Amino acid sequence: MKKISLLGATGSIGWQTVDILLNHPESFKLVAFSVGKNIEKTREIIDHLQPELVSVQDESDALALQKDYPHVQFAFGAQGLIDVATHPESTVLVNAVLGSVGLESTLAAIRMGKTIAIANKETLVTAGHLVMSEAKKYNVPILPVDSEHSAIFQSMNGENPKQIERLILTASGGSFRDKTREQLKNVTVKDALNHPNWSMGAKITIDSATMMNKGLEVIEAHVLFNMPYEKIDVLLHRESIIHSLVEYHDTSVIAQLGTPDMRVPIQYALSYPDRLPLKGGQRLNLAQIGQLHFKEVDFDRYRALKLAYDAGRAGGTILTAMNAANEAAVALFLQEKITFLQIEEIIEQVMINHNNTLIPDLETILHVDKETRKTVVSMVK
Amino acid sequence: MKKISLLGATGSIGWQTVDILLNHPESFKLVAFSVGKNIEKTREIIDHLQPELVSVQDESDALALQKDYPHVQFAFGAQGLIDVATHPESTVLVNAVLGSVGLESTLAAIRMGKTIAIANKETLVTAGHLVMSEAKKYNVPILPVDSEHSAIFQSMNGENPKQIERLILTASGGSFRDKTREQLKNVTVKDALNHPNWSMGAKITIDSATMMNKGLEVIEAHVLFNMPYEKIDVLLHRESIIHSLVEYHDTSVIAQLGTPDMRVPIQYALSYPDRLPLKGGQRLNLAQIGQLHFKEVDFDRYRALKLAYDAGRAGGTILTAMNAANEAAVALFLQEKITFLQIEEIIEQVMINHNNTLIPDLETILHVDKETRKTVVSMVK
Repeated sequence: MKKISLLGATGSIGWQTVDILLNHPESFKLVAFSVGKNIEKTREIIDHLQPELVSVQDESDALALQKDYPHVQFAFGAQGLIDVATHPESTVLVNAVLGSVGLESTLAAIRMGKTIAIANKETLVTAGHLVMSEAKKYNVPILPVDSEHSAIFQSMNGENPKQIERLILTASGGSFRDKTREQLKNVTVKDALNHPNWSMGAKITIDSATMMNKGLEVIEAHVLFNMPYEKIDVLLHRESIIHSLVEYHDTSVIAQLGTPDMRVPIQYALSYPDRLPLKGGQRLNLAQIGQLHFKEVDFDRYRALKLAYDAGRAGGTILTAMNAANEAAVALFLQEKITFLQIEEIIEQVMINHNNTLIPDLETILHVDKETRKTVVSMVK
Repeated sequence: MKKISLLGATGSIGWQTVDILLNHPESFKLVAFSVGKNIEKTREIIDHLQPELVSVQDESDALALQKDYPHVQFAFGAQGLIDVATHPESTVLVNAVLGSVGLESTLAAIRMGKTIAIANKETLVTAGHLVMSEAKKYNVPILPVDSEHSAIFQSMNGENPKQIERLILTASGGSFRDKTREQLKNVTVKDALNHPNWSMGAKITIDSATMMNKGLEVIEAHVLFNMPYEKIDVLLHRESIIHSLVEYHDTSVIAQLGTPDMRVPIQYALSYPDRLPLKGGQRLNLAQIGQLHFKEVDFDRYRALKLAYDAGRAGGTILTAMNAANEAAVALFLQEKITFLQIEEIIEQVMINHNNTLIPDLETILHVDKETRKTVVSMVK
């Protein structure tokens, strides 16, 4: 029985994590979780999984819930996230919050010796050096939840990482993969949210369309697998059936495949090194699919991906600046305050103006994050 | 440094094994090998790899070679094969002979505690129960050399075999994959030997065209991985890039891919659990390949595959009869004494007439093998 803390329980990944926990009561127990403002779903989770601690964003929600659930402990705000992440009973933290809010609580959980299942790209992108050095110090495994990194992790099972020649991250190309840059000028938010293969949250669906998502994943792969950027490739693969591949120095390539379903990598991070049956999972039928397509990625077409490689190779606070600029710009696009192509332009402008600090501490990272968001908002006024 | 015995050094797999040994003198030493009648290649191997023992088919060749290489020990015939397989210095036996001649020497090597790298399908097909029970008794690993089984073996690395849902063997479809059964009536030996993806020996190329090769592989997979036939599927995949796949009970599928090159699985069997760089290996470029195709296999079109599943499910001496009938029929086809479709007809007739013994001993297997070959020759007179 693994005891789980879950950050971000009502988001897309968090909610699917809850589904897995519900389906495997013999294997997992949810002891603590955090949410933002979705109190209805919070009640649902409490009713079904009876955790010991729940953290919400606002104090008022915590007080209201406390009245209805006198036997559950409630917390709120930034301290609440840390309380959930460091709950004394849990041995695994699933970090499924969006953006950089998960950083401090993840570091706190690592220092408590908890295994980290990480769906929160931004934590690794902005503070990968801090997370991985703490994980090493406290001998804590960092398990990927993202489908691509899970695929790489699964393809490295039993292998010697020194014998890896190359990681190949596949990319569906996102909602606009069949559009030219010219055609991208007038796309709408609604168009962008219509992802062909994956059902995900709004922010990650936009990141998928700009391919900043893949850029963040390249950086995440660099951090998680300690792999130089020249050994990380991106391959366009529109069907999202091969979730990623690992090439070894004997030219052998190991890959993980499956029907697109985020519950597979989420569950694997929880059950690792074992596998559990996936309730309601759809088995892969390659004969029915018939064909898989592959194409080289064009860095002129996907400028955000190029920017991410540039930031990754540079390292330091430019990663935080790039990530914060992207988060802020995507939010503005979702509010229809900027166009789709302006997302990249804003990121690039922020990167050009950035004064890089190579090995930043947590305080510096949080400062750059905050300042960059302000800068982006001021850029579009 | 692993010390190697090699049976069948001048065949297709054996010769590529020699190439790998030449390329990795720091990792491997060839201590003993056997050949048939190719004395020129035998001299080449002796000159380059300086083994201690060499076995040839005929005594006269052994005597002639002994004069030129006084410091090498020579043997011949069936006893020679056993001497090579059980050479006291070797720890690994590569069994790369064709047909059922490798059976006795493989069993002898297992009893000496040697790791077996097996490219000899017939040994596992006709006497799988004997080989695997001896391997278990002497705690000896049986490592596959066939590309499909190596792919499965690589895709099981670090996994729990109990969590496997299905093995999926890919099949190129062979030289006649685009022909209907009607069109198969008049195909020639030359047509049949023109395999689109793999450069292999004549017998296996014909087996690939009839898909008896895949049938033998299904049986081999059943034996090697202790997997019931209903969990072993065959998938048509014309590019031979995905060499086979393993589906787990969480719906995740792990696969091994690569440019078709038999040296990859051969070397993996030798270097396992490590991987060594493959000299002159061609790296996989999926973007350049562009598309991979998959199709369900049609058992009416590929009757030999159906016959192999039938024999596998039945078990016993019918496996030996089927295999011997196939070997004899393919030989007759290569001599242009029968047509291509007669290969299947002969196998089916032999199977229909076979009086099955379910758990045969070695003597019975060898008897059925010999009698079946005679029967086939008499059938076409």
